[in-house]
Amino acid sequence: MSPVKQINHVAFVVDNIDAALKFWRDALGLEVTHVEDVPDQDSVVAFLPSGGAEIELVKPTSEDSGIARYLSQYGPGMHHICFEVDDIAAYIKKLQKQGIRLINSDPVIGTGGKLIAFIHPESTHGVLVELYELTQDEPRIRLARARELADRAIARGQIAAAGILAFLRQLSGNEENKGDH
Amino acid sequence: MSPVKQINHVAFVVDNIDAALKFWRDALGLEVTHVEDVPDQDSVVAFLPSGGAEIELVKPTSEDSGIARYLSQYGPGMHHICFEVDDIAAYIKKLQKQGIRLINSDPVIGTGGKLIAFIHPESTHGVLVELYELTQDEPRIRLARARELADRAIARGQIAAAGILAFLRQLSGNEENKGDH
Repeated sequence: MSPVKQINHVAFVVDNIDAALKFWRDALGLEVTHVEDVPDQDSVVAFLPSGGAEIELVKPTSEDSGIARYLSQYGPGMHHICFEVDDIAAYIKKLQKQGIRLINSDPVIGTGGKLIAFIHPESTHGVLVELYELTQDEPRIRLARARELADRAIARGQIAAAGILAFLRQLSGNEENKGDH
Repeated sequence: MSPVKQINHVAFVVDNIDAALKFWRDALGLEVTHVEDVPDQDSVVAFLPSGGAEIELVKPTSEDSGIARYLSQYGPGMHHICFEVDDIAAYIKKLQKQGIRLINSDPVIGTGGKLIAFIHPESTHGVLVELYELTQDEPRIRLARARELADRAIARGQIAAAGILAFLRQLSGNEENKGDH
């Protein structure tokens, strides 16, 4: 089995995305490509690409999720690192055979419809590690989730609309360029 | 001023590099290119490239350094993230003007002779952020430090010699290809 391909993202838990963007976007100069609601994980996530990877700012949306408990116990800060793999199901099996403890024994759906699985920090020397495999559904699910969030943001005026609009523009571009792939 | 260029590395604090490598190298399949002693930071660091960035496993070598206190308080886990910038001195000034608190107001020498500076987690919503600028001295300092560590490792038999040998081989290759740069 080939090793993990690359760092896909590094995720930080925040209690306020707009406040955190004052550092990550306004001071460091990273661009927010989009903001996405992830109901399966009780969180809203802002994506800020940097080189070939992304910074994700994750804000819990309920009080009883794992990430909400993490925020409440440790405060905002580094939360997990995600690596891309080619075949996540095979990867999980391989790790389990080596005695590595998985939080997800089967892949689950993450942001944008990715297939993901978390490895337990007990097996990684304290680091929460996510594995991810790109799926063909990812662009469709990502668009649907961004639109849903945009609708709610317009209604509530809570989320930085600029990020969502940039993402929708980017998606339109992708649709136009579809023939190139 | 242009934004940070890319994630250079993500660092994890460990209490035993060889034990941590059982996950990061043996299970995830990442390669250890080299192991380096960083006396200025009271630590030994193992480097595992992944895509265009690196994973660094950092083991404190004294008990009174910042990273040793972090390990003792929180246990092993994610420690900091490092971004590459073009002109670190100018970047520090720009951040200070924006009210961002720096741990290092002037760049200091990090692994491999890089110029580095840390931003205080107070200004980043809980994340220890390192900035780094590549210097011309980096290859020379990196080689000297790797050789020093190799000598000690051979004497003590403590450090995975494979990583150091791979690094020295890589450096020999770089010397041969010098004309290309």
